[in-house]
Amino acid sequence: MFEKEVYIRRRAQLLAKMRESGQSGIILFVGNAEAPAQYRDNAYKWRQDSSWLYYFGLDEPLYAAVLDLDSGRECIFADDVDIDDIIWMGPQPSVASLAGSVGVGHVQPYGALDPVIKDAIKAGRTVHYLPPSRYYNTLKLMNLLGRARIDKGVSEPLIKAVVSMRLIKEDIEIAAIDAACDLGYEMHSVARDSIVPGIIEQDIVGKMEGVALAKGWGVSFPTILTQHGETLHNHLHDKVIEPGKLMVIDAGVEANSHYASDFTRTYPTAGKFTPKQREIYQIVCDCNNYAFSLTRPGITYREVHLATARKMLEGLSALGLVKGDLDEMVAAGIAGLFQPHGLGHNMGLDVHDMEDLGENYVGYDPDQKRAKQLGLGSLRMARRLVPGHVITDEPGIYFIPALIEKFKREGLGGDFVNYEKLKAYYDFGGIRIEDDVLVTPDGARRLGTSRLPVTPDEVEEAMGR
Amino acid sequence: MFEKEVYIRRRAQLLAKMRESGQSGIILFVGNAEAPAQYRDNAYKWRQDSSWLYYFGLDEPLYAAVLDLDSGRECIFADDVDIDDIIWMGPQPSVASLAGSVGVGHVQPYGALDPVIKDAIKAGRTVHYLPPSRYYNTLKLMNLLGRARIDKGVSEPLIKAVVSMRLIKEDIEIAAIDAACDLGYEMHSVARDSIVPGIIEQDIVGKMEGVALAKGWGVSFPTILTQHGETLHNHLHDKVIEPGKLMVIDAGVEANSHYASDFTRTYPTAGKFTPKQREIYQIVCDCNNYAFSLTRPGITYREVHLATARKMLEGLSALGLVKGDLDEMVAAGIAGLFQPHGLGHNMGLDVHDMEDLGENYVGYDPDQKRAKQLGLGSLRMARRLVPGHVITDEPGIYFIPALIEKFKREGLGGDFVNYEKLKAYYDFGGIRIEDDVLVTPDGARRLGTSRLPVTPDEVEEAMGR
Repeated sequence: MFEKEVYIRRRAQLLAKMRESGQSGIILFVGNAEAPAQYRDNAYKWRQDSSWLYYFGLDEPLYAAVLDLDSGRECIFADDVDIDDIIWMGPQPSVASLAGSVGVGHVQPYGALDPVIKDAIKAGRTVHYLPPSRYYNTLKLMNLLGRARIDKGVSEPLIKAVVSMRLIKEDIEIAAIDAACDLGYEMHSVARDSIVPGIIEQDIVGKMEGVALAKGWGVSFPTILTQHGETLHNHLHDKVIEPGKLMVIDAGVEANSHYASDFTRTYPTAGKFTPKQREIYQIVCDCNNYAFSLTRPGITYREVHLATARKMLEGLSALGLVKGDLDEMVAAGIAGLFQPHGLGHNMGLDVHDMEDLGENYVGYDPDQKRAKQLGLGSLRMARRLVPGHVITDEPGIYFIPALIEKFKREGLGGDFVNYEKLKAYYDFGGIRIEDDVLVTPDGARRLGTSRLPVTPDEVEEAMGR
Repeated sequence: MFEKEVYIRRRAQLLAKMRESGQSGIILFVGNAEAPAQYRDNAYKWRQDSSWLYYFGLDEPLYAAVLDLDSGRECIFADDVDIDDIIWMGPQPSVASLAGSVGVGHVQPYGALDPVIKDAIKAGRTVHYLPPSRYYNTLKLMNLLGRARIDKGVSEPLIKAVVSMRLIKEDIEIAAIDAACDLGYEMHSVARDSIVPGIIEQDIVGKMEGVALAKGWGVSFPTILTQHGETLHNHLHDKVIEPGKLMVIDAGVEANSHYASDFTRTYPTAGKFTPKQREIYQIVCDCNNYAFSLTRPGITYREVHLATARKMLEGLSALGLVKGDLDEMVAAGIAGLFQPHGLGHNMGLDVHDMEDLGENYVGYDPDQKRAKQLGLGSLRMARRLVPGHVITDEPGIYFIPALIEKFKREGLGGDFVNYEKLKAYYDFGGIRIEDDVLVTPDGARRLGTSRLPVTPDEVEEAMGR
């Protein structure tokens, strides 16, 4: 948690932005409840709502707040603990003192929220709320608002105001993300050192996530660790590690501050790349570095994505896997066959920052329209870069037989794709390399103290074999 | 997952039980969805609903099923993956083949569930469903049933039938729990070996949970690891380990089979008990062994709880912390001042087995009424024991200043409690010792291959100092 003044300033700024855009009424923030894994008292690890953390900091379940746009009054709704709670949880600070620690002067019981909202609705006032991130919050909003559906009533002005603030990271946030990246470095190092043919993937995942839990809140998203990198989001880790494969590890730590890191590295399970692996790896590595070199205020990340796609096709051309004019290939979306995802996303309190508020609000400027093309269409961050943006740089090349066959069958690759030659890559797997990047006034800086080994030589040396 | 025949047999048995109790209509099972941590695509680790696992085994999100009590027809509702899913998740088996692997012959898309339920309601048929364990399932049931509240409509006959089956563990389940206990043994051993004054508690938690993740699904509930054992459920692990304290570690592993283990041990942080700590520890240890010695078919676990409470008061009398007739003290609930929780709970696919279905259905025979007294009132398992029950044996002694003051203030301890002498224990903390026990035809067996070191001497020797 930051100093009280941070939260006071942020809320004042939010109110000012909302008023500037002509809004009145009240803003309702509903913090999270515990999320049951099996039953109410056996919950998943507690995680507060990120927008709540940003404006209120308090890391406790069943908190809500109302900010009055007209009067400026701020009130937190939560219940003090009783003697039973003290038996089970020990003495706890009061809601009033916690609210005071983030500069909120008024508190009421959690149950008092209901009449407050009902009265506001009755008085014809607008109740601004964000799209709920969890099912509990959906249910709570349904009850509070007395509506069977709450998706239609979310406040676009509120979403836009929140996004505009959370998107540009303050110095204290950047320091928190740097720290999360240092933990991510440590976790990835443990993972790399644990890759030994013969063991089960899950064994490495446990070791890695143990580091995240020992030093931080835990992992910032379910770890991707797979010898089938062509399967982009594989959360099963039941395979034995075989020599000669490529192991994609895409994982991050959420620090106790709740700021995230997110790195990907790809390792030869045997400790040495085969020449064929090294060729493809080098292209991905070059693309990662190239994207970073282009990242600076003024350029859009969509442009960086497309320039990197061109670079990737250039490398694949040299290997004879595609052929033709590079610009035509970029325009035809040929890169999407190899990298069906975007170059990167925003990162902050969420690893895909604010994805609950809507990807297009977060990642696209008002004048940008999301493409439909495979790859570019999955680009989560397309905006014109400004200092304070924190984004990932994560190009990848995958050989996905089902996708290649689809391209061939439906003629999606035009004359650009050498399907014959691609057959030799059907069992190749995939490679992704990801760093976290801060846009600075002059250009960009990779976050974290050190960069994980990344060139083929560095990787082989780090694997020490 | 077990063999197909297990699930076929269980469902047939469930239908038979329901029909025997005069029920008709359909049984609706709603499996879990992914539980968002921050937003839809950043979910907590996937965990299926336990009753679903018991009857259908399929460990996938967004599955549901309808069993027709009248026709005997069984149908699973879920969606096959499309090409987009294959890009992200790799090739997946079809719903039909998964359903076939657990003996269900009919499949329909997930969306087809809605008209099926609506038609059943229109036809005046009873829709039996269990209380939902998660907010998603609540929302889904509200939509399917077209009701704003679904708690009133849960099927008591279905709850009773499911509880009667899941409560008595089959041999294959006992083997799975034994394996989970072996993982729990391993995790606790790592924890014990990691206790070093000067480090942060979280560091041990990370190491422990890393073992659970490497070898199993993860922990079976949020780890309790605290130098303030008097705070019963403390999930913050931010304290530095100080010498001279007692460290309560209450933690379990959920195996990949999803069966749980649950052990507690209490360690002197310095590696050696002080004489004062050893005295109290010995009482708790004796109580644990005594409860186990009484555990056998025919006795109720309520009786075992009360006999153990008497044993505890006997030990505390010898130290002069309480005084008076032991039976009178038991009747007056004096043990609840020191152990405000029950002796144990059922364990299986959930660590508190079936707590989502209602504690009283699970832990109490029809002729048993739950007490209101502190301690006994928190007893989760009171039933007359029969072979196949899997329960925990977890006595504890805690010195909770707020609770002692309350007893004194409100005269709850009568003349039995020596408040003067208790003052010397206000900074003592707490001790709990927990094993997992199977009720056998002849008596009881502790689950897992080996018992964690438990006597004071064994504990000190294991800590190697």
